[in-house]
Amino acid sequence: MPKFMDIHRNMKGLTADQLREAHQADLDIQGEEGVTFEHAWADTDSGEVFCLSEAPSAEAVQRIHERAGHKADEVHQLTLSV
Amino acid sequence: MPKFMDIHRNMKGLTADQLREAHQADLDIQGEEGVTFEHAWADTDSGEVFCLSEAPSAEAVQRIHERAGHKADEVHQLTLSV
Repeated sequence: MPKFMDIHRNMKGLTADQLREAHQADLDIQGEEGVTFEHAWADTDSGEVFCLSEAPSAEAVQRIHERAGHKADEVHQLTLSV
Repeated sequence: MPKFMDIHRNMKGLTADQLREAHQADLDIQGEEGVTFEHAWADTDSGEVFCLSEAPSAEAVQRIHERAGHKADEVHQLTLSV
């Protein structure tokens, strides 16, 4: 299953609770698109959130994020990994 | 120890060997700055490389990348993680 890194920008000041709730909203529906979100990290100073997932496609990742209310700004398929 | 995600852009067409060599060049000297690179992923279509690390500071991460010959375009401290 391909891996993906997606980026959400302009999330400056995000709290731990907000990140946890947003991530949970993804987890709650991810199975409907065959997506598995593995990790989410945030730089709360500059406002980026990074999500690592396994999914059938970038579109599946984005559909889950959109339905959960937080569309990603970039979704990258990770074609190489070390 | 804080975690960091750094991004290298404009690496379109990067090969698996090139990524492995670049990552190894970081690993070879990371101890001199107290950095531990945990993972590197690349989107070879759009040209981004993402590196996840533990380090004392963003500057320490950048110093290793610069000395290894591949300065990062962004270095983000991951203040939240889920």
